[in-house]
Amino acid sequence: MATTSAKTPAAKTSAAKTPATKTPPDASRRSERSRRAILRASMELVGEVGYNKLTIEAIASRAGVGKQTIYRWWPSKAAVLLDAFTQTTDEAQEEYAQGLPDTGDLAADLRQVLHATVDEFTDPAFEAPYRALAIAGAADAELAAQFYERLSEPGQQVYERRLRSAQEAGQIDPDLDLAFAVEFLLSPFQQRWLTRYGELSYEFADRLVDMALRAFAPRG
Amino acid sequence: MATTSAKTPAAKTSAAKTPATKTPPDASRRSERSRRAILRASMELVGEVGYNKLTIEAIASRAGVGKQTIYRWWPSKAAVLLDAFTQTTDEAQEEYAQGLPDTGDLAADLRQVLHATVDEFTDPAFEAPYRALAIAGAADAELAAQFYERLSEPGQQVYERRLRSAQEAGQIDPDLDLAFAVEFLLSPFQQRWLTRYGELSYEFADRLVDMALRAFAPRG
Repeated sequence: MATTSAKTPAAKTSAAKTPATKTPPDASRRSERSRRAILRASMELVGEVGYNKLTIEAIASRAGVGKQTIYRWWPSKAAVLLDAFTQTTDEAQEEYAQGLPDTGDLAADLRQVLHATVDEFTDPAFEAPYRALAIAGAADAELAAQFYERLSEPGQQVYERRLRSAQEAGQIDPDLDLAFAVEFLLSPFQQRWLTRYGELSYEFADRLVDMALRAFAPRG
Repeated sequence: MATTSAKTPAAKTSAAKTPATKTPPDASRRSERSRRAILRASMELVGEVGYNKLTIEAIASRAGVGKQTIYRWWPSKAAVLLDAFTQTTDEAQEEYAQGLPDTGDLAADLRQVLHATVDEFTDPAFEAPYRALAIAGAADAELAAQFYERLSEPGQQVYERRLRSAQEAGQIDPDLDLAFAVEFLLSPFQQRWLTRYGELSYEFADRLVDMALRAFAPRG
């Protein structure tokens, strides 16, 4: 949950591999307009009422479509929301289409992407629905597994690739377990966001990068 | 949320300083028995039905007392649960009454306390109600602030004291911000527990300690 994954192309790739839609929406302009209206309505509503009170009926009503239109394309409200997340964030964040920035300066690259993530997680339009999803996932192990596959794991892999590049350049410990390293780097961000126990700021992101890179350094 | 704080005497101290009870319970044996029954019932029920569906009525019924008995001692269900948590975990964990172990070997001491925390967070009797509280806190900023004051912050301070001792012994960076260091150490544990994205094991705890101590080491 709550990684920067939603911002990455990997989430899109994963969505293409494991579509939540029962059948691909009709390619006509009208279908596409309905589909976008449904995704937008699901994001707005989950932020307003929370995941538990979100209904397909309410999404349909807000989107101006019939319930059956939604059921034809998605098996559940969770499936709608996951598509909504991967879609809207893909659209907004084309700059990471090739993965994280790789200027050769790992610290600068991580700070850049984490600053963008701070912006995202302090934007109520993103934050409120994402929080609703995160809470629903914490309460429901099956839903959590779907989030992991569709959002978290693809996002982690984007970070892993950037760390692998640094590893190959000899900038971090060659024996570092990269999946664990990413978990270690991102968890304080995710946890602080979810618990609200501290401010999500650029300064916090910078300290996180500094601390993580000290841990990742080649052993002396 | 989800620190080992509940296991520590600091939580008890904090509870004494900022009681959730409106008036101290009658010291008579019968009152004390009712009080314990209420706290136990609240822990059982929140694990069974979740925080949102937990009611004072249901707690009273399970505990065999009248609703007014609960309202006389606690202003809200959140207050009952916070007392239940600090009380039951204090009773179970007297070994940390003086803070974290301090043998002089920081890594060994942190591993020991995190292993105990793994045991706690993989015990359904603890895990289920604590998860309900964590989820309720994620959804409700005011409740989150209460958790922070009663559970998280006191627990963080116990870790901070142990790190300060290591700092004074020259074992970790003298410039390290200890509050941030504790957040950095515990967040991956808390996050993995809440999201269920990986196993909470002794091996995970050991890797966490290893990674954190690399980050905390004096700068070369």
